[in-house]
Amino acid sequence: MPNVYAVIMAGGVGTRFWPRSREKTPKQLLEIVGEGTMIQNTVNRISDLIDPKNILIVTNKIQKPSVAKQLSNIPEDNIIVEPQGRNTAPCIGLAGLFVRRIDPEAVMVVLPADHIMHNEEEFRRVLRLAIWVAYESGKLITVGIHPTRPETGYGYIQVIDEDGKTNPYFDRGVYRVKTFAEKPNLATAKQFLQSGDFLWNSGIFIWRVDTIMNEIQIHLPDLYNELLKIDGSIGDEKYDNIVETTYRMIRGISIDYGVMEKAKEVYVIKGNFGWSDVGSWDEVYRISGKDDNGNSITGQAFLHDTKNTLVYSGDKLVATVGVEDLIVIATDDAVLVCKKGQSQDVKEIVDYLRRKQKVEYL
Amino acid sequence: MPNVYAVIMAGGVGTRFWPRSREKTPKQLLEIVGEGTMIQNTVNRISDLIDPKNILIVTNKIQKPSVAKQLSNIPEDNIIVEPQGRNTAPCIGLAGLFVRRIDPEAVMVVLPADHIMHNEEEFRRVLRLAIWVAYESGKLITVGIHPTRPETGYGYIQVIDEDGKTNPYFDRGVYRVKTFAEKPNLATAKQFLQSGDFLWNSGIFIWRVDTIMNEIQIHLPDLYNELLKIDGSIGDEKYDNIVETTYRMIRGISIDYGVMEKAKEVYVIKGNFGWSDVGSWDEVYRISGKDDNGNSITGQAFLHDTKNTLVYSGDKLVATVGVEDLIVIATDDAVLVCKKGQSQDVKEIVDYLRRKQKVEYL
Repeated sequence: MPNVYAVIMAGGVGTRFWPRSREKTPKQLLEIVGEGTMIQNTVNRISDLIDPKNILIVTNKIQKPSVAKQLSNIPEDNIIVEPQGRNTAPCIGLAGLFVRRIDPEAVMVVLPADHIMHNEEEFRRVLRLAIWVAYESGKLITVGIHPTRPETGYGYIQVIDEDGKTNPYFDRGVYRVKTFAEKPNLATAKQFLQSGDFLWNSGIFIWRVDTIMNEIQIHLPDLYNELLKIDGSIGDEKYDNIVETTYRMIRGISIDYGVMEKAKEVYVIKGNFGWSDVGSWDEVYRISGKDDNGNSITGQAFLHDTKNTLVYSGDKLVATVGVEDLIVIATDDAVLVCKKGQSQDVKEIVDYLRRKQKVEYL
Repeated sequence: MPNVYAVIMAGGVGTRFWPRSREKTPKQLLEIVGEGTMIQNTVNRISDLIDPKNILIVTNKIQKPSVAKQLSNIPEDNIIVEPQGRNTAPCIGLAGLFVRRIDPEAVMVVLPADHIMHNEEEFRRVLRLAIWVAYESGKLITVGIHPTRPETGYGYIQVIDEDGKTNPYFDRGVYRVKTFAEKPNLATAKQFLQSGDFLWNSGIFIWRVDTIMNEIQIHLPDLYNELLKIDGSIGDEKYDNIVETTYRMIRGISIDYGVMEKAKEVYVIKGNFGWSDVGSWDEVYRISGKDDNGNSITGQAFLHDTKNTLVYSGDKLVATVGVEDLIVIATDDAVLVCKKGQSQDVKEIVDYLRRKQKVEYL
């Protein structure tokens, strides 16, 4: 059996979850759906499979204290701090340096900190399979989600239509990736759904650390060279300074765009475990329990003549009268009222607050 | 010239203004439209006409401290406390006892504490005329507002179509009342508006104190007898106890229903001074200034893709996305989101809170 490490990416700001998500307490550090914060649930979901001392968290300076507090079972040294967010490729590369020094053949499971999965047993089955294939094949593995609707908020993965002759893992539900597709418009999303060979791109990756570092060296040589500068200083007192200066030179790029789309051979494992990236308040409404009027309520609320509305009331009382298809989120210092279907525009509010330097609300 | 006393009725709870209006700080003690609280504006509006030492306020125990604080120019002895709210007839009768002891021929101007008037000069002209007619004629006088729309939220007054032969004040714009009408439905309200002989019932009354006490004695003899019990104790140490026990026996009845509709001859003076009883959040929206998108904002707010919406944000930030025709009211501990046109139903929320004994929100 290989050594297995998890790398949980937890540096996001979660602007689309304003006013709950703030710079100091972003989405992954909140209880958005059900009990436990999203990052706690992410860790708990894999702790049967991966020893907490092998779980690394990549976050930023502002969030580190809360991360450490919420994940008391994880050694504080496992929390890696990026000076700035530079998208997923540098984040994964930085964590890869740490894992590679321990064991170059270790398998890395890369997980976003802010996803939910309803069937955790099935999720762990997929991970176990992925770890085995990643270790044995030395290939890049990603997890594709069986699509259930023409979703325009996700990227897609098209699989190769094959009979298994050239794919030794075909019988286990492991497919080869034909192409990655960006978030489609609705018409395209409908075609994807009908075609049957498109999966949702979950953003979950499994690979041996030598595999991914090698692929980064091939496809993102500039990044790889910067990472090497950091590598030499790990465990050294100069480390903090070198990470700081190196990150200024690193450009932001996603692992999808920078590596996955360019790599020669990528496997995708089909998962069907009730996955959601919980990307917006609309998505929270979609996956939440509702009452007979289609309302989903967290906290104290009185809804009169109200339908299909999501209410989060914090420690306040929220009352609604004669409305439908709304999202109402109340926090200590701010209130959001948003038409359902338009919650992607919540980021406009955060942009406005940044422009106006209303930092107390960011 | 007669002695003139004002009686300002300020005991209401303002349930339709929840969550701003609370038992301790009801509508009349708040800045709902523009600057100054409603009761402060009510006093200031008449202080050119009536000496503050002649202005009486009728309120309740809970509100008395705030009333006294807000109206520092009014002697504290002028604040009359009702043990319970019993509608307007007992309130007016109780105040009448105090005025009658000073001067039975004094003119009483009875004003709700929570109305607004845009043209205060015209309002005072109407009051001056009313005071003179009330003193000279010894009749009951009310003020009717020239209607500008088929409003279903007000009661109406129909005037007698006459040529002035039997009405010595006809030339001064003083009419005789034919009948009082309850709040109509929309079809009836449209007929009232077209007919030209209906005015809005403002709830403002002017009469000599001997006139109104006499009318109460005739039409509400039970109330009058209870009031006499109180009368004997004014200035006495037993007063508080007697008011307390007497009020338990008094049934709630409005002066409109109990006296005005039954009295033989009532005059109405037409007023056209931009009056509103500010009876709901919808009415606040109607009379407030709006921006180019039809939004009316008080406090900190960012409205994105939002039209025809009223926002009061208290000391919070309110953000809206993709909504229209909404009322959004945020206070320290509660948030209201209400469809425009349905703000009459805000009282349902208060009823709910009472049933659930959530007294902290009342």
